[in-house]
Amino acid sequence: MRPNDAGQVPAVVRLPETREVLAALAEYVAIPSDSRNASRETMREAAAWIAGRLGFLGARLEETAGNPVVRADWLGAPGAPTVLIYGHYDVQPTGRLEEWPSPPFELTVADDVAYGRGASDDKGPVYLVVAMLAAMFEQRGALPLNVRVLLEGEEEIGSPNLPGYVRSHADALACDLVVSADGAQWRPDEPSLSVASKGLVSCVVEVTGAAGDLHSGRYGGTIANPVHALAAILASLHGEDGSVAVPGFYDGVAPMTPQRRAEIAAVPFDDAEYAARIGAPGLSGEAGLSTLERLWERPTLEVNGVEGGGRYTVIPHRAAAHISCRLVGEQDPQHVLAAIRGHVEATAPAGVRVSVEQVGGAVPAYRIPDDHPALAAAAEALRTVYPGQEVLHAVIAGTLPATTLFEEVTGAKTLFFSFAHADENAHAPGEFLRLRRIPEGMRAWQALLEGLADGPHRLRRGGEQEER
Amino acid sequence: MRPNDAGQVPAVVRLPETREVLAALAEYVAIPSDSRNASRETMREAAAWIAGRLGFLGARLEETAGNPVVRADWLGAPGAPTVLIYGHYDVQPTGRLEEWPSPPFELTVADDVAYGRGASDDKGPVYLVVAMLAAMFEQRGALPLNVRVLLEGEEEIGSPNLPGYVRSHADALACDLVVSADGAQWRPDEPSLSVASKGLVSCVVEVTGAAGDLHSGRYGGTIANPVHALAAILASLHGEDGSVAVPGFYDGVAPMTPQRRAEIAAVPFDDAEYAARIGAPGLSGEAGLSTLERLWERPTLEVNGVEGGGRYTVIPHRAAAHISCRLVGEQDPQHVLAAIRGHVEATAPAGVRVSVEQVGGAVPAYRIPDDHPALAAAAEALRTVYPGQEVLHAVIAGTLPATTLFEEVTGAKTLFFSFAHADENAHAPGEFLRLRRIPEGMRAWQALLEGLADGPHRLRRGGEQEER
Repeated sequence: MRPNDAGQVPAVVRLPETREVLAALAEYVAIPSDSRNASRETMREAAAWIAGRLGFLGARLEETAGNPVVRADWLGAPGAPTVLIYGHYDVQPTGRLEEWPSPPFELTVADDVAYGRGASDDKGPVYLVVAMLAAMFEQRGALPLNVRVLLEGEEEIGSPNLPGYVRSHADALACDLVVSADGAQWRPDEPSLSVASKGLVSCVVEVTGAAGDLHSGRYGGTIANPVHALAAILASLHGEDGSVAVPGFYDGVAPMTPQRRAEIAAVPFDDAEYAARIGAPGLSGEAGLSTLERLWERPTLEVNGVEGGGRYTVIPHRAAAHISCRLVGEQDPQHVLAAIRGHVEATAPAGVRVSVEQVGGAVPAYRIPDDHPALAAAAEALRTVYPGQEVLHAVIAGTLPATTLFEEVTGAKTLFFSFAHADENAHAPGEFLRLRRIPEGMRAWQALLEGLADGPHRLRRGGEQEER
Repeated sequence: MRPNDAGQVPAVVRLPETREVLAALAEYVAIPSDSRNASRETMREAAAWIAGRLGFLGARLEETAGNPVVRADWLGAPGAPTVLIYGHYDVQPTGRLEEWPSPPFELTVADDVAYGRGASDDKGPVYLVVAMLAAMFEQRGALPLNVRVLLEGEEEIGSPNLPGYVRSHADALACDLVVSADGAQWRPDEPSLSVASKGLVSCVVEVTGAAGDLHSGRYGGTIANPVHALAAILASLHGEDGSVAVPGFYDGVAPMTPQRRAEIAAVPFDDAEYAARIGAPGLSGEAGLSTLERLWERPTLEVNGVEGGGRYTVIPHRAAAHISCRLVGEQDPQHVLAAIRGHVEATAPAGVRVSVEQVGGAVPAYRIPDDHPALAAAAEALRTVYPGQEVLHAVIAGTLPATTLFEEVTGAKTLFFSFAHADENAHAPGEFLRLRRIPEGMRAWQALLEGLADGPHRLRRGGEQEER
């Protein structure tokens, strides 16, 4: 059975109502699958929940050294191409609870959005695909092409066990295209396709001094203070011009071409509106570049957090900072980490010890070529939902660790097809999903799968899809 | 009744055994009177415990706007001078529990010390006086001179309510000398008297950026990161030579005289031993000065703690540091605070907001003249316990906020007479008291009170004790 076999299957699929999707998503969000902090039982519960919703495709949990992956396969369309749908069921830590408008694990509708940890990254976007597939399968008894599903539970901690799993299941994951339900459209009012994502490498810089905290009077002025040393180190990471001052950091970053600068300059972008929306007093970054150039084309080094001592009169004996770098082009994560380590060691003042330790996985940057046929199919699918609007080729300044891996193992490129948006407080308190994206996302996913199965942008299978 | 009325009272007072003192002190330490975090009920419980031990002097709790003070008076020696014994019943926060060798509120004897929060600062030293007074009073029915006691419950948070209490009870606190059971002898193997203490002013520097934490990829490189800004601010507080780089910070600090430098140079001090004892990789501080000069004669600015963001990939929206300054000479705490505020505002990069808010009380530095008669009496008392040893005139690099206040209200100077030591982890995890200080401290306190009452260093009363 194929969807173009008119008469056997209904041409129009009735997609679920938004309220039905919200009711199901509320159950999913209620499982606090924070992969940094949750128990293995909680992670497994989240995996089992979404696998249960994919039962019609024979979904199951498969073990890894960490959290299980959710896998499903429907290969009932011989001769049609195969897509692997990727997403994740883990979520970020909540951050400070008092900064949430509602409890993070209670999906809460307010006006035209639904708040909850994972609503936007990535439980909401994944559930849209699942709900659409379920409706299509129930009403037609078939999907328009072969579908595999792989949902991991460690994306937010850098996917430490995904490489092992994918590499040892290369045959079972064979596909012509990976479609990622993770990522984000860059703006809620312009349909966009992401053609690249940034790499990521994180580390903790730790500075230690005396064996224990010391009275700030009785020892003050006589020994190096690890917080002072850490501050000096962190202050040295960027230059006056906002660039990263770590020697070797930019190795592998090609200069922007005049053509790319012109493309980006053509995208409407209002710095003042951007700053106002996030509540920042102003913008900042590398001198001589536009905000969008910094965001899409340049690597970054951000200190995500700092800790040491407390609000009492001591000289603390340790201080630490968590740093993450977003990478572009050919930057090698391990080279970047080594560059940071070398810089920290060279910058550390006397009287303290320093260490730099990698945290989580290391992921290089990724890019899908502008002329890949999946981009055309995806643009067409977006136009069916957002008629008359240009589809922008944007960059995901975030990191999707699976992309490089999938290409290595299956040879397939990854298309990002997400109905989350960059302003939805992913990774921060107050994460939300826009309600209108629920019907839009389901319709667009349906159009995408049908377009990849048939028509001018039909996906080439296996041997067909050769070097381009 | 006076102790020199032989025949009426026993000449030799039998002081309690160390084990008896430890048993009582264990009860006292068990009340977690951390004035920064404990409930008012807990603070009151600690006050009531020590007042109960002073019942023979008619001790009572008196209210303030914060925690009550413990007060007692025994004025049964007409014609004799009056001393006011000062101490505190509050303690510092515990810090990280895992860094304690035993639970902080369980007094734990190990080898020749007793571990516990407050064992050294200041429950132990205060209880030694109380136990000695109780033994003396029980066995003789009298004390050698008039004694008032004032124990506060907010010393570790800068004594915010002590000034109001003392100023409104000037008559009831009239005395010829304050003797502080707070402070520390600077070394366990050399008897010393502290002739000065440093002042203190603390503040929190807060840097804020966007309205909430932001995804470090999706916003990276476009806005100022408050942790980066805070690091730059903190790194600018000290110069390359280790001095404080805040303009105006040193106003009111006189240069050290050649005489004072020579005195300090004569004190044996081993930098390597000092560093090894606290487990520091090396010493650090103002260039061109010895460790002891830095410690005793120079003001300091220490960042006690820093916090912001976390170990996940965000651009945090706020970061904050707690700073404390130890002051010397004529430094004005409010002037120092204003200097820091001005420097922070001038140093803050664009794109963030900064604030500098005072935390706790502000205390100027204090000094008792080298020729004050109480110093001679105290030296004599120490020599009775430590025969044949020189009594060193040292400096308490810590802060004892009550001293300046007592001089203002009563006209009396404060003698520091403590049997704690600077290496006993006050304000840090693992605080302890040396067991041998228990009998030594009680004997020395007895000798001090007897020496101030009679003999060559007898304290002059009221009108006798005029300008010197």
